[in-house]
Amino acid sequence: MLLKVKSLKFLAGRPVAIIHQKVSQKLDVHSGERVAIRKKKDHQEIISIVDIATGILKEDEIVVSYEIFKKLRLREDSLVDIEPALKPLSTNFILKKLQGKKLSYTEIFSIMKDIYKNSLTETEIAYFISGMYVYGMNDNETIALTNAMVKIGKILDLNKKMIIDKHSIGGIAGNRTTPIVIAICAATGLVMPKTSSRAITSAAGTADVIETLCNVEFSLEEIKKIVNKNNACLVWGGSLGLAPTDDKIIQVERIMGIDPQAQLIASILAKKVSVGATHFLLDIPFGKGAKVNFGQAKKLAKKFHKISTLLGLKIMIALTDGNQPIGKGIGPVLEMRDILAVLVREKSRPLDLEAKAIVLAGLIFELAGKTKKGHGKRLASYILNSGQALEKFKEIIKAQHGNFGDLNEKLRLANFKKIIIAEEHGKIEEMNNKKINFVARVAGCPADKRAGIYLHKQVGDFVKKNDIIATIYSENKRKLNYAEKIFKDSKAIVIN
Amino acid sequence: MLLKVKSLKFLAGRPVAIIHQKVSQKLDVHSGERVAIRKKKDHQEIISIVDIATGILKEDEIVVSYEIFKKLRLREDSLVDIEPALKPLSTNFILKKLQGKKLSYTEIFSIMKDIYKNSLTETEIAYFISGMYVYGMNDNETIALTNAMVKIGKILDLNKKMIIDKHSIGGIAGNRTTPIVIAICAATGLVMPKTSSRAITSAAGTADVIETLCNVEFSLEEIKKIVNKNNACLVWGGSLGLAPTDDKIIQVERIMGIDPQAQLIASILAKKVSVGATHFLLDIPFGKGAKVNFGQAKKLAKKFHKISTLLGLKIMIALTDGNQPIGKGIGPVLEMRDILAVLVREKSRPLDLEAKAIVLAGLIFELAGKTKKGHGKRLASYILNSGQALEKFKEIIKAQHGNFGDLNEKLRLANFKKIIIAEEHGKIEEMNNKKINFVARVAGCPADKRAGIYLHKQVGDFVKKNDIIATIYSENKRKLNYAEKIFKDSKAIVIN
Repeated sequence: MLLKVKSLKFLAGRPVAIIHQKVSQKLDVHSGERVAIRKKKDHQEIISIVDIATGILKEDEIVVSYEIFKKLRLREDSLVDIEPALKPLSTNFILKKLQGKKLSYTEIFSIMKDIYKNSLTETEIAYFISGMYVYGMNDNETIALTNAMVKIGKILDLNKKMIIDKHSIGGIAGNRTTPIVIAICAATGLVMPKTSSRAITSAAGTADVIETLCNVEFSLEEIKKIVNKNNACLVWGGSLGLAPTDDKIIQVERIMGIDPQAQLIASILAKKVSVGATHFLLDIPFGKGAKVNFGQAKKLAKKFHKISTLLGLKIMIALTDGNQPIGKGIGPVLEMRDILAVLVREKSRPLDLEAKAIVLAGLIFELAGKTKKGHGKRLASYILNSGQALEKFKEIIKAQHGNFGDLNEKLRLANFKKIIIAEEHGKIEEMNNKKINFVARVAGCPADKRAGIYLHKQVGDFVKKNDIIATIYSENKRKLNYAEKIFKDSKAIVIN
Repeated sequence: MLLKVKSLKFLAGRPVAIIHQKVSQKLDVHSGERVAIRKKKDHQEIISIVDIATGILKEDEIVVSYEIFKKLRLREDSLVDIEPALKPLSTNFILKKLQGKKLSYTEIFSIMKDIYKNSLTETEIAYFISGMYVYGMNDNETIALTNAMVKIGKILDLNKKMIIDKHSIGGIAGNRTTPIVIAICAATGLVMPKTSSRAITSAAGTADVIETLCNVEFSLEEIKKIVNKNNACLVWGGSLGLAPTDDKIIQVERIMGIDPQAQLIASILAKKVSVGATHFLLDIPFGKGAKVNFGQAKKLAKKFHKISTLLGLKIMIALTDGNQPIGKGIGPVLEMRDILAVLVREKSRPLDLEAKAIVLAGLIFELAGKTKKGHGKRLASYILNSGQALEKFKEIIKAQHGNFGDLNEKLRLANFKKIIIAEEHGKIEEMNNKKINFVARVAGCPADKRAGIYLHKQVGDFVKKNDIIATIYSENKRKLNYAEKIFKDSKAIVIN
């Protein structure tokens, strides 16, 4: 049926079209069902969910969400042909998984392809995730999932013999080791095309932090140039189209707060394979307030090791202490201040962040064969102390259209602050990552880059009554008060 | 945040609000997340999913779907307050089920309540259904699910000692025994407030068929009057608010084509309990082309028996032959013609439909203590032959604002038809319920009440080449051609 496009630039988060009730009756499609929308002019097609309306549009009109408008390059009054879209074949494979059966590569690829094409709804993806969550996936399925994710996305083709990537399993507040590690390693000539995420539920992602000083959004071609010149980059991976189905799956997982292991592994490894990584360092923080405890961390490490090896990826895994935040600042600007403090060797730099960065960089040196086993840390310390890491970091920031002028303004903190003092004397027993991240979110992170929390103490420190333990920053007084209240009520920091 | 309502009467199938991108940033809600919308004037509240737009609305405006407009009784420019809605507590119980644990009544009630309030998204409901599908539910959970569904909905309060209901598990084309059974039983004074559904995936539901002669949409108060006067009604149950969460769950199940047993049982029993049923006859068709085979039917019957008994409902279960369609007509008008043919004792009436109706009515007589065991069928035959069932049927149709004038026009068939002839001689080996239903849908059922298929033969009949085996009716030539093609290609009827 031919319909005229009416623009109504709403972003629905997925392709959504609104059609007239009479049209829906004629096509026998109901609200929430699928239609194929084909542009008359060039036969480009997209699968969309329909909503049904009566008031706003005429029978021969169709209102499309911005996702459709953009993908089909429509204009006001463009003509499109619509018809009911068949249920994709891949729903059969989702059902198969939900029945506890194993899926083949072809079947998993079909599911990934349909997720990518938006042919599967969030609800169908939820059924798939449930199947993975309940039954798990064996090695073959996990590898198939990884390969399918890679196959469907774009590839960063650097044409180098050795490409190194690193990843930290999230959940730890602060923990901004990546920029330091990349600067140290790239300074020695190692190639590290680092793509990072923005914060989803935490106070900041590496991309949010780097963005306080320079751009993080580049095309694959631009990234190639940056890496070819500087050995490394620190960019946002979100819009590059590397293993893109992963993002959609994670979106649906977040709804239930679950993260099936196979999906976690495939999701991380697919991004690495997509940038052409040959060597990979994985940091798994464990402990109270981390995503996993020690036992789980060991199991996860084993599984990662097996799958990576089967994929032909050389992997090294560090199990690190995830009991408390790493670094003093939580929030984009506060974390960038910590990074610079380490790189310029400030006296008051966060030593826990520095120590962890050195450990990780050292392991990369050993993984890459730069040093013998056990000697990586020494080389990392040397590169950091000698100022070479700082120089490399500056080069990267410059290549990403940033500079180091007027740092005071760029890294200015939010206008309002609340100082949290110890209400009794004692030993700090817990600093809860989740709660601290949440307080920083309430204060305005990550959208408000200058907001966040500065931690004056660490677990194990003794405090006297009225000692300052943390400072909360926000650009908004109401948010600040609310953040302070939550900080106290939730017992984000426990003194005993 | 106070926003002005902009009407845009679109039916989204669930509450959906479109807010300006800047508002979404201020509230920190993303597309697909939940907000609470509270009407300024009377503080009525609804939970809604948000979409995000830029073009169509100003920052201080909110576009709401018709569901919200109606529930909050809004007008153009009404003021509403919106804020991010917390994730409902019941998501924790959904996760619990997905982890294979058992749920308590309170937990199940909380999930049902949130489904009813639209606080849970389709995606979250899919996770719940997955949990039920994979792990099943024990007796206590199934009873809790039934009771929670009943508790949340409305009740038909007839204040009678004995109230009887019947139900056929769907899937069989035709099979319109209900109106005949109700007419026979109500003629003897038994009280049967029958609520039925419209077709979802089949060619017709009982409500669609009855609607060819009279209204089927009444309020609970009106139904009470109809039943008090005539012992029975034949109405649509969809808008009465009896166990309403069930409909929402079924909608999400349909997406994956699954129907967890506990949900199937609770869904049926909750509707029965809601109309105050004390006695219940369940028809489970089994066989090729039915939903279950004989073994599954026996298991299902056992479970139904147990749960019904625990709920204090007297149940009788008939396992019936579901290998082929029942009756000659498939489609609303065609099925009503079959029903009338049986009631008026036409010579060419469908004897299979009549026989099944007599069996079911007979069982109800035995269940209700009207006759001794083994004698129900004889009474049912007598009532049917004597014309009392026809009289009762006429009374019910009249009470529902229908009449028997001008039946030729009311039950006129669609304008176009295709006659399907046997292409070879042989024995009819299969008439596939699913395929025949689908062909009738393609021909225009159920929206086009005059469309459908008339079956001239049954399984086991011998046919000669060029014998007529079926006639397809449609109001639309294109649909008719398409239906014929699918009929042939899908081998809806197999001759051997």
